[in-house]
Amino acid sequence: MSMVTITTKGKRVGDLLKQRQDDICQQLNAIDGSNYKEDNWSRSGGGGGITRIIESAVYEKAGVNTSNVFGVIKDTEVGMFNQLIKRINKDASITTNSEFFATGVSLVIHPKNPYIPTVHANYRYFEVTLDDGQLLWWFGGGADLTPYYLDEDDARHFHRVHKTVCEQYKIGSYDIFKSACDNYFYLPHRQETRGVGGIFFDYINDDFESIFNFISSASAAFVEAYTPIVERQKDCPYTPEERHWQCIRRGRYAEFNLLHDRGTLFGLKTNGRIESILMSMPPEARWGYNIQPVPDSREAQLQAILKSPKKWI
Amino acid sequence: MSMVTITTKGKRVGDLLKQRQDDICQQLNAIDGSNYKEDNWSRSGGGGGITRIIESAVYEKAGVNTSNVFGVIKDTEVGMFNQLIKRINKDASITTNSEFFATGVSLVIHPKNPYIPTVHANYRYFEVTLDDGQLLWWFGGGADLTPYYLDEDDARHFHRVHKTVCEQYKIGSYDIFKSACDNYFYLPHRQETRGVGGIFFDYINDDFESIFNFISSASAAFVEAYTPIVERQKDCPYTPEERHWQCIRRGRYAEFNLLHDRGTLFGLKTNGRIESILMSMPPEARWGYNIQPVPDSREAQLQAILKSPKKWI
Repeated sequence: MSMVTITTKGKRVGDLLKQRQDDICQQLNAIDGSNYKEDNWSRSGGGGGITRIIESAVYEKAGVNTSNVFGVIKDTEVGMFNQLIKRINKDASITTNSEFFATGVSLVIHPKNPYIPTVHANYRYFEVTLDDGQLLWWFGGGADLTPYYLDEDDARHFHRVHKTVCEQYKIGSYDIFKSACDNYFYLPHRQETRGVGGIFFDYINDDFESIFNFISSASAAFVEAYTPIVERQKDCPYTPEERHWQCIRRGRYAEFNLLHDRGTLFGLKTNGRIESILMSMPPEARWGYNIQPVPDSREAQLQAILKSPKKWI
Repeated sequence: MSMVTITTKGKRVGDLLKQRQDDICQQLNAIDGSNYKEDNWSRSGGGGGITRIIESAVYEKAGVNTSNVFGVIKDTEVGMFNQLIKRINKDASITTNSEFFATGVSLVIHPKNPYIPTVHANYRYFEVTLDDGQLLWWFGGGADLTPYYLDEDDARHFHRVHKTVCEQYKIGSYDIFKSACDNYFYLPHRQETRGVGGIFFDYINDDFESIFNFISSASAAFVEAYTPIVERQKDCPYTPEERHWQCIRRGRYAEFNLLHDRGTLFGLKTNGRIESILMSMPPEARWGYNIQPVPDSREAQLQAILKSPKKWI
């Protein structure tokens, strides 16, 4: 039994992100009168989480998860944690029996209709007790949009909402976070981005109150950034060929998550709860041999944008 | 333009495996009167390959590829090659401008009918010029079966054919290669094997003639090991629920290939031909949240076998 005391900071972030989980689920469900299924899980080393899954008329598979996990860092995980720590303070490190705390909200929505983009958002907070006894904390997060058919208004709207939040706080430069997002959600073997981006940041830890307020606003903005897109596209008719294209593109989504996503790989390596980690995987995905969109088709237009990320605002 | 001369050994293996590609494609096509589509590709650094894809009544997506690639090892790839080299001779290494040659046949067959198992086989040969000027060569390969519904006779047949080949040559101990296969095709996060195994070996280089003969027989045995299973199962009726289960299991196949398969990850890291590397991916795959088979169902029986690999012979 771990005797870790959750810090005041940690509790504040955890409570905030739990509130966001509730709000986001309520707003998503309001669109099609759906409900979520909830799993409460606990982690043998300390803490646990709440996984909520929606499978409904609009949402083929959506997961909105929170977790609060803590405990002693295993000796086999020290190297991985030190890599994270060095990104923030190159003179800091841990050796053995260091304690950690992590809390986050993480969501991935795979809508049924290929005209509604898939979306991902994640806001997270980490604490680690360093060898010198100091507490190192940092935030990370972001949100990004993955359309199957590009509606430029949707992309601009999603970016504009996030830009507005960034501009409210000096912590967040939209231009930097937007570029970081394009760089992070990139599949080198396909030479394309996962989607049309959004914002992405990690290892930020200068002023707790400022970042807390930024994270609070950014995570609250998710609903405003995404749900109008769902409302606008959810009743668009689509063909079996468009569904097929959606599934091919979702294959790329699966490739990114399993080959590159730091959160997924970190979760798998640290023996996290598999079903919560892999809720991000698409409900249905396809791989074909050498699929190339017809020149000048809407499929080709999307692919061109992914090969050279655009300035949306 | 690389001026690499292919060695006599390299040419013999390349010719053999090309012959296997022809024979295997012919036998697969004979079952349902299908044809393959062929892509000849060349590699900017030297060499190239022949990718053949079958999409037909029986084969939802099958790829049978050969390649002969060679050239100078890039400085960014030296570390990766040294890791391989150390597995064979811990005192050997390369630094810069070392030449390599690799040839192999690689196939993955994803049949439409969930009663026909997916199958994978790969036989490969590597050469690297060491810093001391010596040529280091080694073979690797194997074949493994991934059923969706387990027919024990199929699994036994597949293993027996491979055991017979192993026993003809002192190079190949079936028991060792069978265990290596169960260990290699393992998903730690699912705590299960990918399928019911077969044989797997790597870094073998004691006596070239013996290994060449073993590889020749093992790769020839593929048709005998797999096609009778296809013939037996191809007309079994199946339900949409059984198709769904097949797609869920194929999701695990995709997880293995992207998270763990050394060949896939090596190909992606060394900037190999993406469409040939990812031909192994399933044509359609599904992920659901916390999918658990009904106790005592055929789905549960399969899962139990994957959690504790069986001695088939």
